Amino acid sequence: MTPLATTPRPPYFAVVFTSVRTEDDGEDYEVTAGRMLELASAQPGYLGVESVRGADGVGITVSYWDSLDAIRRWRQHLEHLGAQEQGRAKWYSAYRLRVCRVEYDSTFSHAD
Amino acid sequence: MTPLATTPRPPYFAVVFTSVRTEDDGEDYEVTAGRMLELASAQPGYLGVESVRGADGVGITVSYWDSLDAIRRWRQHLEHLGAQEQGRAKWYSAYRLRVCRVEYDSTFSHAD
Repeated sequence: MTPLATTPRPPYFAVVFTSVRTEDDGEDYEVTAGRMLELASAQPGYLGVESVRGADGVGITVSYWDSLDAIRRWRQHLEHLGAQEQGRAKWYSAYRLRVCRVEYDSTFSHAD
Repeated sequence: MTPLATTPRPPYFAVVFTSVRTEDDGEDYEVTAGRMLELASAQPGYLGVESVRGADGVGITVSYWDSLDAIRRWRQHLEHLGAQEQGRAKWYSAYRLRVCRVEYDSTFSHAD
């Protein structure tokens, strides 16, 4: 996974998922989180993802999609629903999920 | 700063800033980044911020605003323009900036 997602010209859609991890050891968390990234990337309408977790247990994952319908389908995917359930039960002490329409964007790279 | 921002009922607006740091030692970066968070929080229309940087130098900062105009004013703030210039010159090897309208959101907390 490259750290910055390459996305098309706006408009497109973003899911901003901000979370605080519990003290749980996280072995099954890592496996499930990796599986969810893999599964998301295989869904229709998926455009890319950017994800960071800090040493303090706070994480932000932004996934990009071509429509609100694609986001709705992904949120209702059966295996994803199971992971969401485990997230609330074990892995997250709190989270926010925000579904957004990207209005405009800009990029910078030293290679430009 | 609390890790998760408390935001009003949608719609509101988000700036998703995803970046990769250079190898620069980052002392002046830390000072300027802290100053920008402080300055942003004093701008009209500011709602909150969430920010994480990982050990690999990849960071995501999401700031929340009540209007696109508030975002435009903040992006053109003189001291912020100076910081942006230094960011491109010294601190970031690449970044993406995406301005979004938050359509809907949800929250979870074990305290709920």
